[in-house]
Amino acid sequence: MMIAVDAVGGDHYPENPVAGAVLATGENPDIQILLVGPEDVVSEELLKHSYDSSRIHLLHAPQIIGMDESPSSAVKTKQSSSIAVGLAAHKQGKCSAFVSAGNTGALLAASTFILGKLEGVIRPTIVAPYPTIKGISLLIDAGANLEPKPEMILQFAKMGEIFCREIMGIENPTVGQLNVGEEAEKGTDLQKNSHKLLSQMKGYLGNIEGKDILFGKTDIYITDGFTGNVVLKFGESIPDALQQMLSLTMKSEAVQEEMQRQIYSILEKSLKTFNYEHVGGVPFLGVDGTSLVGHGGSSPVAIKNMIFSAAQCVEHKVNSKIISSLNN
Amino acid sequence: MMIAVDAVGGDHYPENPVAGAVLATGENPDIQILLVGPEDVVSEELLKHSYDSSRIHLLHAPQIIGMDESPSSAVKTKQSSSIAVGLAAHKQGKCSAFVSAGNTGALLAASTFILGKLEGVIRPTIVAPYPTIKGISLLIDAGANLEPKPEMILQFAKMGEIFCREIMGIENPTVGQLNVGEEAEKGTDLQKNSHKLLSQMKGYLGNIEGKDILFGKTDIYITDGFTGNVVLKFGESIPDALQQMLSLTMKSEAVQEEMQRQIYSILEKSLKTFNYEHVGGVPFLGVDGTSLVGHGGSSPVAIKNMIFSAAQCVEHKVNSKIISSLNN
Repeated sequence: MMIAVDAVGGDHYPENPVAGAVLATGENPDIQILLVGPEDVVSEELLKHSYDSSRIHLLHAPQIIGMDESPSSAVKTKQSSSIAVGLAAHKQGKCSAFVSAGNTGALLAASTFILGKLEGVIRPTIVAPYPTIKGISLLIDAGANLEPKPEMILQFAKMGEIFCREIMGIENPTVGQLNVGEEAEKGTDLQKNSHKLLSQMKGYLGNIEGKDILFGKTDIYITDGFTGNVVLKFGESIPDALQQMLSLTMKSEAVQEEMQRQIYSILEKSLKTFNYEHVGGVPFLGVDGTSLVGHGGSSPVAIKNMIFSAAQCVEHKVNSKIISSLNN
Repeated sequence: MMIAVDAVGGDHYPENPVAGAVLATGENPDIQILLVGPEDVVSEELLKHSYDSSRIHLLHAPQIIGMDESPSSAVKTKQSSSIAVGLAAHKQGKCSAFVSAGNTGALLAASTFILGKLEGVIRPTIVAPYPTIKGISLLIDAGANLEPKPEMILQFAKMGEIFCREIMGIENPTVGQLNVGEEAEKGTDLQKNSHKLLSQMKGYLGNIEGKDILFGKTDIYITDGFTGNVVLKFGESIPDALQQMLSLTMKSEAVQEEMQRQIYSILEKSLKTFNYEHVGGVPFLGVDGTSLVGHGGSSPVAIKNMIFSAAQCVEHKVNSKIISSLNN
């Protein structure tokens, strides 16, 4: 299976995407890679590796979309970017999927525009893996749709359910809606009406609250993209904030260096679910194709895992399962 | 100054409210207390203390509003509750303020209904003290107004600014609006239009993101009540979640008991800002009176501090400063 990889996406390009692609072909003989990016940059980076040249190919795309560029203008003006060229190749059937650790907003916009939407989908959504004390849950919508309608919320939950089952291996995923209280009449019209629609799902646990997030109360946290984005970025900040808090305390308490090392080591192990490496990437659910986005800081291992997740999405026919779930 | 205290509010009544009232009169000779609640319950509890009986008085209120009761029905049906009777006494001028660690929703509804709104206030708001690595910030709105208008957001910020300056002693408080990005065009119409209005405030830093919350980027975090409630409860859950994560790691790593004790002690000290005791309580800003609510788990020291905060609100003329800030 051929997977296109954005060679110039993320905070550490071309090093990490190229290294991740080499890792993936080394581990899985069925994978071929199409590295998309400026030819000179990518081929120079490839020189650092030994790899099977019959399985790693190059697709020239001279432009690079920066991590902080405005998605809409980047997609409009940079039609020769790695993102646009890679997605177009996927649309034309030259590869089975496209993966990138680049600008999430630009990736969503370009995926929706170039690949189109799946039959019956109102709006594609961004899914984020969310660390809890039980492992990884999914947060949907993580920022794509700031003001969704209840019908969209139901679709997000159904699409997330399929991703959880097929790719994360959770047989019967549970769904909870973020709200200001557990009762059915809590929240705005959006939460009240979404609650009614979500209640038709077997795995729906009902409304959950902010205090439930870190405890992994459900496999899927459903919310609007505004709240989702705030909660996502808040969660990502916890390890750093905590480290700074502990460091201040240990300084003021004059804790011995050896003890400090041990405490940091325990903290790091405790927060290992906050390390997104083993998740790799998540697809834009609802687009007519397989387009995954990874964390900007993705390591080579994270990129490799994103490539494998993309292959799994294709093999497990996630999209046709979404179509039949939404249209029946 | 006479302050009314809800003797049957919070998770630990009548013990903690009564003990807090006794502490307050012991520390400040200018304070008198009106304990509001069922006469038999309160007078029996008072027997456990030695106190100046000329300065602690009793106001009979036979009904108790539970922590989980629906605010609107509780306020309608329990007109002899400690909350209703205490606020009515305040309205009639029998005391200068009312404080409670009880049901926040019921307290807001009763305060708004019984005391009324200050001149020019569109809607009163719930303020929550928010722990950060720099100390305590304020989160407004913490759940009273799920779908505010931009004009309300501006009023919340102005009222919060006065509370910060007068009661928290921050000379020039800064204000940030929670949003999905820092740019002016980010967010929904609410954030875009609120951003424009907030820009007229000297202390406004602009939009901030979820990742900034724990780092104490501003003194006041302004947001709608839905997001505020989710973020508030999320933050409150951090110490417990963290303790559980560390405990699991230490178990699997077979960390020695003495070492575990030291780690927990450092963790506890690091998270001391998450202990609301020294804040005590916060007022419902915008009501025509002084009505403060404290954490349900308030200790006697927290109740005492809430009583002192109430006295400060009165002495510093917070309400007349709000009126002149909003009407000029």
